[in-house]
Amino acid sequence: MGLFTRDIKTLDDLFVHTLRDIYYAENQIVKALPDMIDKATDTRLRQGFQSHLVETKNHVKRLEQVFKLHGVEISGVNCPAIDGILEEADEVAGEVDDKMVLDAALIAAAQAVEHYETTRYGTLIAWAKQLGRNDCAALLQQNLDEEKAADAKLTALAEGTVNAKAA
Amino acid sequence: MGLFTRDIKTLDDLFVHTLRDIYYAENQIVKALPDMIDKATDTRLRQGFQSHLVETKNHVKRLEQVFKLHGVEISGVNCPAIDGILEEADEVAGEVDDKMVLDAALIAAAQAVEHYETTRYGTLIAWAKQLGRNDCAALLQQNLDEEKAADAKLTALAEGTVNAKAA
Repeated sequence: MGLFTRDIKTLDDLFVHTLRDIYYAENQIVKALPDMIDKATDTRLRQGFQSHLVETKNHVKRLEQVFKLHGVEISGVNCPAIDGILEEADEVAGEVDDKMVLDAALIAAAQAVEHYETTRYGTLIAWAKQLGRNDCAALLQQNLDEEKAADAKLTALAEGTVNAKAA
Repeated sequence: MGLFTRDIKTLDDLFVHTLRDIYYAENQIVKALPDMIDKATDTRLRQGFQSHLVETKNHVKRLEQVFKLHGVEISGVNCPAIDGILEEADEVAGEVDDKMVLDAALIAAAQAVEHYETTRYGTLIAWAKQLGRNDCAALLQQNLDEEKAADAKLTALAEGTVNAKAA
């Protein structure tokens, strides 16, 4: 949608716009994760990122099902939020001079990504239900549940071993 | 800190860098909230943003206490993440053509901000504890608790009245 053209007239328009925002975001995350896997040193962190890459590709497919169910074109819109979060992750990683500290920074960056997705899915689910699209809400809930589980695993890994190795 | 100069050598450096990131972010939010208050139509949403502006100014002060306790200079670093989140909030708000739908969009934008702060405070608290700075962790925890409470209030407002008025 164009900027400042006031194309969003209904909650349904806002729902579709935000669906396209998270669709763009998930695709950017698919592109960003291989670099994070390369940078990670801790074996469990690398494995965690690898399994989350598989999940993220699956989130893209589930979003495509939501577009189809809702009868709208599958497409993304620019999402300055995820671009900013990923740009910051890259900048900070470039400034870190120690592999153990880099692992701690990578976890923090990944958790910022998870939290962005969590808030967008939470909003989309509430709007889908309001619009009577419980079928779409159920698919979005599956993505949300996996994002929350990924975030919880990263917290456990940080507080269990990675932060202590970095200190 | 400069880009790609590898200035972050220890977990303590990473902690201070991230403290400066959230300090910049909180200050940007202080600047952004008055515009969100102006755009909001629902009385309870306006009041919610107004009371969160007071809280946010207080978060800035608490962060300044953390800098002092930790014995480092009070300063911000560029935070492309919050810049992106706020830029996106502004873009989407500019595209919405209905006041009730705009309220729903403003809540979604504010919750994206809250979630960014939640993830950063969660990380900072874990690192502060790892570094033996329970005094800093306690102050950061107060900010985190208020961000989480603000997010929960927005969810209740959205699901209670705002989304239904927008639909």
